[in-house]
Formats: sequence, structure tokens, C-alpha cells
Amino acid sequence: MALQSFIEVEPDSHFPIQNLPYGVFKPEPASVARPGVAIGEYVLDLSEISKAGLFNGPILKDSDCFLQPNLNKFLSLGRPAWKEARDMLQKLLSSNEATLRDNANLRQKSLVPMGKVEMLLPMEIGDYTDFFSSMHHAKNCGTIFRGPANAVPANWFHLPIAYHGRASSVVISGTDIVRPRGQFAPSGNSPPPFGPSQKLDFELEMAAVVGPGNELGKPIDVNEAADHIFGVMLMNDWSARDIQAWEYVPLGPFLGKSFGTTLSPWIVTLDALEPFACDSPKQDPQPLPYLAEKISKNYDISLEVQIKPAGKEDSCVVTRSNFKYWTLTQQLAHHTINGCNLRSGDLLGTGTISGPEPESLGCLLELTWNGQKPLSLDGFTRKFLEDGDEVTFTGFCKGNGYTVGFGTCSGKIVPSTP
Amino acid sequence: MALQSFIEVEPDSHFPIQNLPYGVFKPEPASVARPGVAIGEYVLDLSEISKAGLFNGPILKDSDCFLQPNLNKFLSLGRPAWKEARDMLQKLLSSNEATLRDNANLRQKSLVPMGKVEMLLPMEIGDYTDFFSSMHHAKNCGTIFRGPANAVPANWFHLPIAYHGRASSVVISGTDIVRPRGQFAPSGNSPPPFGPSQKLDFELEMAAVVGPGNELGKPIDVNEAADHIFGVMLMNDWSARDIQAWEYVPLGPFLGKSFGTTLSPWIVTLDALEPFACDSPKQDPQPLPYLAEKISKNYDISLEVQIKPAGKEDSCVVTRSNFKYWTLTQQLAHHTINGCNLRSGDLLGTGTISGPEPESLGCLLELTWNGQKPLSLDGFTRKFLEDGDEVTFTGFCKGNGYTVGFGTCSGKIVPSTP
Repeated sequence: MALQSFIEVEPDSHFPIQNLPYGVFKPEPASVARPGVAIGEYVLDLSEISKAGLFNGPILKDSDCFLQPNLNKFLSLGRPAWKEARDMLQKLLSSNEATLRDNANLRQKSLVPMGKVEMLLPMEIGDYTDFFSSMHHAKNCGTIFRGPANAVPANWFHLPIAYHGRASSVVISGTDIVRPRGQFAPSGNSPPPFGPSQKLDFELEMAAVVGPGNELGKPIDVNEAADHIFGVMLMNDWSARDIQAWEYVPLGPFLGKSFGTTLSPWIVTLDALEPFACDSPKQDPQPLPYLAEKISKNYDISLEVQIKPAGKEDSCVVTRSNFKYWTLTQQLAHHTINGCNLRSGDLLGTGTISGPEPESLGCLLELTWNGQKPLSLDGFTRKFLEDGDEVTFTGFCKGNGYTVGFGTCSGKIVPSTP
Repeated sequence: MALQSFIEVEPDSHFPIQNLPYGVFKPEPASVARPGVAIGEYVLDLSEISKAGLFNGPILKDSDCFLQPNLNKFLSLGRPAWKEARDMLQKLLSSNEATLRDNANLRQKSLVPMGKVEMLLPMEIGDYTDFFSSMHHAKNCGTIFRGPANAVPANWFHLPIAYHGRASSVVISGTDIVRPRGQFAPSGNSPPPFGPSQKLDFELEMAAVVGPGNELGKPIDVNEAADHIFGVMLMNDWSARDIQAWEYVPLGPFLGKSFGTTLSPWIVTLDALEPFACDSPKQDPQPLPYLAEKISKNYDISLEVQIKPAGKEDSCVVTRSNFKYWTLTQQLAHHTINGCNLRSGDLLGTGTISGPEPESLGCLLELTWNGQKPLSLDGFTRKFLEDGDEVTFTGFCKGNGYTVGFGTCSGKIVPSTP
């Protein structure tokens, strides 16, 4: 029988004792931000648990990492500290452990109903990098932007392609997204049209959060890369396809992306995902030695995107996906092979996660083939996102009698400011 | 006659009382980092001036902005605070003002010989963006990478093209640069070659430092953009051309750039550059209204690059330049037009500054035409940079009887770690 908490957790909850994802929250609007873990319908306040002296293992005993307004310090401590914290928290929350269960005062102080808290970005993001790791996405976008002859670039099968993203505009789930304005490709010799994007899109992604970083000039070995990844979040890399198409040659996406990127509030740790590890797809051609892993691991995570138009009660599922080519550890090793330094809290996006089937494509650009085939949904159609649309991602792994989930990552489109 | 300081300043010094650029330094290795301004051969310690109560104007009187380990707080205060500080410091350092001149104890505490200090990055850089603003550079690189038919992309004359750079690997002048390793384009069906870059290059750039930022979703008007720029630095955007050429399609430069970017220690303020403002080149076609400036300003800054090979005593001038197309204010306005938020301390690189003449090209890629025409220097030749090469940028504006200079921006190439 699966490990159980004394806190009641519904069978389909994303946050059983097997998960314990980390976030940062304020219990009241005027409170100081502090780290917490999700358990059922509650957030366990780690600053209170820390102040109560319950992190009493050798690494965390004298640490103030849970008295910080973000997780960066805890992230920097590395896997031994993460394991110590997880072991302690699973024990503390388990049904047969009295310490918290039978201490009404401590329960009152440290367990906050999830509906009452304000979630914040869990870490300060020094740099945000976005990869391009789904072959189906690469092929579809390439065909749309450059035609079928040049769809997947020659380098795609040899290296995890990526670009530097914008860290300042990464926001927490629930933040409204203002429709960006910009230039679009002109026809003939007329000046480029300018205005609110007419091709606003979501991109279904996940993002790895960097734990301990590396020194400039010192690459991380691919077989040690997992020790530099704390966990994974859901990410919506909002994209303005008309702005992007006009600006991206030759230096890549810029204003077509930098108006906003939404993260789910909870970081699900690699430890919690471990039971859902699976083989990664076979890579052909063989990757170069610096990308060849002894164990090449993917995670079986079911992802889903829903759209809820303004004024509608219900959301409509737009896509379901679960796939990619390059692994998180290959992405991280590639990122540092030139000596580039990563820092704790850095974000490595997977890129849009599109599967091979038409109903598993990870963005509207692909789902509607650049707006040419509108998507018929429940009483409405969409080429691209409209003002008022609320886009929600969910993701989970199905265990034996429990679910390890990511919660939701959502954002609503609001009109451009004039 | 020009304003003079009681501190002796050599006529060709970059740091007369007309300049007063800001930096961050440690007077002793064990000291706390603190802000300073350069004056002749000295650094004036602003933490001591602040503690002595000499910033007594209405904005700075109660501020702890000069007791910080970086300039971000001062940057965020905006132009009125910058003007108050500059007016006070010019008065304090002038030859006819007794306050500091005649106070031996305060002089002792606050004036540190420049040769003794350790300079640090003056600000925490949230995001670093690099533009592509020299038409000659765009044309030359385009011809080399894509052939003359597609040299300058159609969008170039309509918008300041840019990409997100890597903030973590921005380093202060004097930091060694480890030659990056990576993949290069394969020939035929063989796997991509891998190893230390054989085409390591410098890029002569300047970078604007953002003062007050903007809220996400609220663009900055081009005619107000100057109030969001504190000053300008020299920047070497080191580039590995072989890594870059193989990876950059379709998402832009990544590992070909992110192994290191060097900044000069001093931020020369727009106020100090104002006497050297000049008209920017005429833009044809007319920019879209959001990029049309009432006053379109460039600055007449002479730039020079020198290379000193290992074991040589003397440096050799490689290029001299002074030109660009898009203005700093247009770059900043474009960056925010989609709602992207800038933060104090963000860095906006100009892109490589190449002029029209062969001897004014801003990188070896152009100077040697991708290594095809080696450059004959003083007893040595170069296609690209070799281990041990020290590359130094300088820049200055020539005033009437004084020079407003940037100091130097330098870095030495050290071999790849195996």
C-alpha cells in the first residue's frame, strides 16, 4: 500500500505525500514570501517547520535556506540537501508520525489552505534558456516558416538547439498577458504593418530548474547533469507568430516571445518523478560523446492544454501530449559544453512539446497550420488566441494509487494597451 | 577655460572632472564592494562621501544607494538623482572647492589610487540583450554566412534586430576567456567535428545600461527613452564563429556567444557624453511612428581595438571605428514595444560596430573575411584569435582641452580545458 499522509488527500489530487513539490507563497497579502510544499489542499509553510527546528539533519540543521523569500539558496545546496529535506518531510507528514499530526499549535501555524495563499515565482531566475527539443514541433514550424524542403535544419539531430529567453518577463500562473504590439512582414514595398499581434499563441512546454550551477569555463558532464537539476515545472512560452516570423531572421526569436512566459507555481522534484522515468526515444544518429548518456531518461508525464473563452463556463481541451527527443540532462550538458556558467534558479525550457498525432500538437501554429485550418472547439473556433481567452496547462504522472501532478499553469489574454 | 579639479589630471587622461564615470570597486581584497567615480588616477569612494553626509541634495540626502555593493539602486532613481549626484561631485572635486580639497582625513579615506583597486561589474545584470545595429556588420556577416543575395535581411532597415544574450557569463575587463569547445558544421554525412573553437573572435561593441525600468505590458515611448538610459560601457561580445555558424539556424546565436562577454569597468553617463552628441545617420526608409524620434542622437566616440599576442611587449591596432545606424533610444523603445519589461541594470549591446572602410571593421570575421585573408600585423598574422592573445578595446571623445574616455575593456584567451 502506498505511503499515506495524516492530511486527507483526494485520490485524484496532484499533491499526495509522494509528490511534495516546492513553491513560494504568502499566507496573507502583507506576509513575507516563504517556501512551502504542497500536500493535498494545503501548503506546508517551511519557514515555520524550520523555525520549529524540525529540519534537524546534518546539512539543513543550521541552514536558513527556508527562511528566504525564494528557493535559490536551497537549490544551490544540491541533491544531498534535497534528499534530507524530502525524507524529513515525508516522515513528518506521514500518517504514523505524531510530531506534526498531534501538535495542534504547529499545524495551525504551518498548514495553510491552498485556496487562501498567494503563490509567487519560486526562484529568482538569473537566465532563462529555451530549447527546441520536439522533433515534430521543429518539423511543423520549419515547414510553416520555411517550406518543406528546409523544414528540420541539418543541425537538429546533432545538438539540442536553443536560444536565450527573457528572464524579466517570466511570470507566475494567473498573471494576465497583455496582447503584444509589434511589426509584421510587409507585402511588397509597403512599410511593415504595425499593431496588436493577430497570431497570439501558447506553447506547451516544461522547464527544468537548475540546482547547483557551474563555474565559468567548467562544463558539466552529461552523466553528472542530473545532480544539477532540482525539478520541473509547467511553462507556457506565449508567442506572437506574426511578430516572430518577421523579426527572427537571422538572430532568432525576440519580441515575439519576450512579452511574457508563464510558469506553474510548483516545482516537482526529479525525486518525485523518478518512479515515472522511462527510456528516452532512440537517438539516431548517435549523439557525440559529450551528449552520450550512460542512462538516458525521460519522464512519462501526461500534458493537456485547455482554452476557456471569455464568458464561457467551461474549458475545452485543445491538445494532449507527452513526448520529446533530447533529454533534460543532454540539454544541460550541451548548455555548458562551451564553458557557459549556469546559476541556481536558472530555467531550461524544453521547447514546445508536440507529439506525432494531430491532436498532440503543442501550439496553435501547428494545430491550425498557421491559422489556415481553424480549430472547432466546443461551440467556438480558434485560429489563434482571442482577448479574454484563458489558457490552462495541466500535467501529471499516474502512479499506483496516487497521482504526481504539476497543478496548473494558466494565463488570460487581455487587450493591448493603446 | 574648461572646469578643473584640484586632483591633477593628465591632459590625455580618460577621467577628467568632465567625465566622472561610475564603477564598483574594492579598495582592498577583503573590503566590501562599493560604488566609485573615476577622477584622474584615482577612484573616489562614494560610500565614504555618502557617509560623510556630502550627498545632501533633496533626492540623495537620505538614500543608501551608495552604500550598496552595486549601482542598481542608484540606477533605478532616474535622471533627477543622477543630475544631483553629478552636480555635487563636480563641485566637490573642482579646484576652487575646499570641502574635500582641504580635508586631509576625508581625502585619505575617499581617494584610492586606481592602480590599487579591484574593479567589479558595476551592476547586477538581470537581462542582457544584444542588437545588430551596424549596417556594414549586418551586410558583411550576411554575405559570409548566407551569400551576397541574402546578405542584409529585409527586416534590417525596419527594426533594430536583436537577440537575448546570456547574463551569467558577462565578466569584468581583465577576466581570462577560456577558449570554448563545441560542434562545427560537418562535411557531407560525417558527424559534426567537435573540439576547441578554431574561429574565436572579438566583437567591438558598446552597451547601454538601463536606469529606471518599465512595468510589464507598458512600453516606453521613444522620446522618453533617454531617461531610461544611465550610460554606456565598452563591450567585447566574444564569438566562436565555427560554433555559431553551425548552431544559429533557426533560433539564433547561443553557445557561439554565451562563453563570455567582457565589459569595461566604468559606465560613462549620457550627461558626460552630451557634448559629443551628433546627428544619427539618416534612416531610409522612414522608421515606423513608434521608432520616429523628435531628436535622433548619436555620440561621436572613437573606438579602437588592439591585440597583444603572448610574449609580445606591444599591442597592435587592429581596427578603428565610430558608427552605427539605429540609436540607443530606438533600441530601447523597440525592446519594450511588445510590453517587455526592462529592469535597472539591464544591458543593451549595440552589436558589432563596423564602419564602411576595411580598416574600420569591428571583428576578425569581417577583417579577415572568415579567415580567408589573414591580417598582417606587427610581426605576426591573424585569421582568428590564438591562445595567449590579449584583446583590448579603448574608446574616447575628444573635447576642447579634455578627453571623456571609457578606459579599457580587455581579456586574454586561455586554452580550452581538456
